[in-house]
Amino acid sequence: MRAYDLIMKKRNGNPLTTAEIQFLISEYTKGNIADYQMAAFCMAVYFQGMDYRETADFTMAMANSGRWYDLSKIKGKIIDKHSTGGVGDTTTLIVTPLVASCGVPVAKMSGRGLGHTGGTIDKLESIPGFNTEVSPEDFIDQVNQINICIMSQSDFTAPADKKLYSLRDVTATVDSIPLIASSIMSKKLAAGAHGFVLDVKTGNGAFMRQLDEAVELAKTMTAIGKQVGKPTTALITNMDQPLGFMIGNSLEVKEAIKTLAGSGPQDLTELCLLLGAEMLVLADYTANVNEAYKLLKKKLKSKEGLVKLAEFVAYQGGNPKVIDEPSLLPQAEFKTVVKSQKSGYVSSIDTLKIGNIAMSLGAGRQTKTDIIDVSVGIELKRKVGDYTAFEQPLAVIHSNKPIKLEGNALLECYKINPSPPLKQKLIYKKITTLDV
Amino acid sequence: MRAYDLIMKKRNGNPLTTAEIQFLISEYTKGNIADYQMAAFCMAVYFQGMDYRETADFTMAMANSGRWYDLSKIKGKIIDKHSTGGVGDTTTLIVTPLVASCGVPVAKMSGRGLGHTGGTIDKLESIPGFNTEVSPEDFIDQVNQINICIMSQSDFTAPADKKLYSLRDVTATVDSIPLIASSIMSKKLAAGAHGFVLDVKTGNGAFMRQLDEAVELAKTMTAIGKQVGKPTTALITNMDQPLGFMIGNSLEVKEAIKTLAGSGPQDLTELCLLLGAEMLVLADYTANVNEAYKLLKKKLKSKEGLVKLAEFVAYQGGNPKVIDEPSLLPQAEFKTVVKSQKSGYVSSIDTLKIGNIAMSLGAGRQTKTDIIDVSVGIELKRKVGDYTAFEQPLAVIHSNKPIKLEGNALLECYKINPSPPLKQKLIYKKITTLDV
Repeated sequence: MRAYDLIMKKRNGNPLTTAEIQFLISEYTKGNIADYQMAAFCMAVYFQGMDYRETADFTMAMANSGRWYDLSKIKGKIIDKHSTGGVGDTTTLIVTPLVASCGVPVAKMSGRGLGHTGGTIDKLESIPGFNTEVSPEDFIDQVNQINICIMSQSDFTAPADKKLYSLRDVTATVDSIPLIASSIMSKKLAAGAHGFVLDVKTGNGAFMRQLDEAVELAKTMTAIGKQVGKPTTALITNMDQPLGFMIGNSLEVKEAIKTLAGSGPQDLTELCLLLGAEMLVLADYTANVNEAYKLLKKKLKSKEGLVKLAEFVAYQGGNPKVIDEPSLLPQAEFKTVVKSQKSGYVSSIDTLKIGNIAMSLGAGRQTKTDIIDVSVGIELKRKVGDYTAFEQPLAVIHSNKPIKLEGNALLECYKINPSPPLKQKLIYKKITTLDV
Repeated sequence: MRAYDLIMKKRNGNPLTTAEIQFLISEYTKGNIADYQMAAFCMAVYFQGMDYRETADFTMAMANSGRWYDLSKIKGKIIDKHSTGGVGDTTTLIVTPLVASCGVPVAKMSGRGLGHTGGTIDKLESIPGFNTEVSPEDFIDQVNQINICIMSQSDFTAPADKKLYSLRDVTATVDSIPLIASSIMSKKLAAGAHGFVLDVKTGNGAFMRQLDEAVELAKTMTAIGKQVGKPTTALITNMDQPLGFMIGNSLEVKEAIKTLAGSGPQDLTELCLLLGAEMLVLADYTANVNEAYKLLKKKLKSKEGLVKLAEFVAYQGGNPKVIDEPSLLPQAEFKTVVKSQKSGYVSSIDTLKIGNIAMSLGAGRQTKTDIIDVSVGIELKRKVGDYTAFEQPLAVIHSNKPIKLEGNALLECYKINPSPPLKQKLIYKKITTLDV
């Protein structure tokens, strides 16, 4: 078998066999296939695609390039939850304690933020003392004790994906649906879960700006789940505006606490209940989504999720007092109010741009090695559909340096119209392996 | 400017500016753009193409990556002749002395054979003593003295093309028409000629198997010529069977001598006259192709082309006696006659396969570093349309080892039918910048 022939085969629009895909990935990981050949292959995939069987083979080959986490010592089915990335997406910090409070184990690996999107590990680390570097043994022990542990994704999971992603990142081959799907799912598979709930974002703040692309990505990822025997449910959700009101690490932790206390933003609360319900169903904990949804709502009311968050924070070395006193979280020095320059209804928000402004404040990373400032971010005062009078606040910028251009930039993210816009959907579609 | 953005731009189907193409090629040549980025770019070009302006810019950028030959000290216009490669294509050895015998200078750089196709330099080197390594000064002096010199293409012409071709060769990005056209034309341009006559082969022994591909390649190369102000004429010619009867280096030299003596194969003779006529027209030596054709026919009759060949061979250190005594050329030890197993008309010949059999005998190279045997090859006794009785010879294999499977393989190249086939065209089309 030769890499050359496999590039040619894909270039000419033919599917690769399982053995060919295994060869390609394993030899590439070993360094026996050069980056330039793999780059040509990825560009050929960009144009010719891969079918679901090929994509599942590609995913498994990458997952098998490193060690799998063995979660067999944890009682119960582990359902992982993954978001394709958005702005103000604090769901993990809310859903996971809520699910754990039902007695369903959460053993999760998460990543750091890059570009305009945040990452769960960065958010957790804004809690003073919180440790995300956990040994595999402690990881399992903690889940068996308190039903929840979230650790930083290890470099040893799916090393082929790591290598390939770095290559795609510099060869303009990132935005290929089979390559995106296999990259996500290979890491998730190797992390050892029994099933997956995927939050596939679409809209002007998502990687998949168009709904049809998001649907195709969701279909591809659930197809991978099906091919490898892991029940998978994807919700395609709105990212045409930030989720909730807070963007930035400690700001989002505050919002998560507020939400678990029952007084969070409506969109964020609802999405968390829906994602959590899918997790309970895949975990065989409840018979259907309605039942699961009701149960989670009850846990929200009883604040059992909030109690679980405090326990979880304490177990991983964080200061649990932040739950009752969120002011203990790092706070930015300056707060600059951005005021509307006209009156009317917010018709749209440029979410990507808001994410990038937050990044430029220090809340996110332009490149992997950038150091972030967990205290900074943006607090929205108006969202799509809201009315604002002239000079009423649209948002507050939290920063550690005086604000210059960011205020105007933020103002430009808001479109204000005399009449209210159509109501946006929170959930566009659900795709699940359970249907089939 | 970043390579990443240029890959993305091409991937998305947008044309690159002149400055962007210059950046890409010059930084790649310097090693500042990695092979993996260039491989992704080439694959994007494979799918999205380049328009004529882009292709001309790409060509010029590659030509400018090294030194251009300065032929200004040669009197008269230098018209280069290039073939895209075929089997038994001895035209250069016939056309160039014929044109030179008219007083039109021929200052040509040629290459070696690879794969199933031969190369002029290998053929010339089968003449005992012939030297193809000529200094730039001697090259110009010789042309000024006897109107003809052919030297081996220097490694210093278009180094970007050399680097890029090696990369395309291992990334399945060779067969892209803009990349093929720019590769050929960049080397030709840097070789310093004023205009180009291109023999674009099509058929089962050519790189462009389909006529429409050959037409597109010819259009692209003439468009490059037009863009850079070099008059260019392309003839699209038949390679559905070998040209002439001889395949192999010294065998083809023999056939060239025979043709210049006026008794060569009809197809080879005619093609040489037509290509030569186009050269004379581009050199402004004759007003039109008809006049040029008649003149060259006269030179053939008077054997002035043959005399010029002898002079040319002598000037480059070769033994000019081979002209009168072709048996002085290296000869193979064994001659094996391949006989027809049925009677009928030859309806087709698998030319690629014949080229590969000749290569396997030692007449050609599988890889660049292979050493060839100039004495071996194949002599055809029947061509398309010819009648053969049972057990009459179809071909003779010239080899330096006893023949085993090659005889049967050669037999399989011939299709014999009871009725004669339609007559093949020698020339399909002419495309020239002079029209426009």
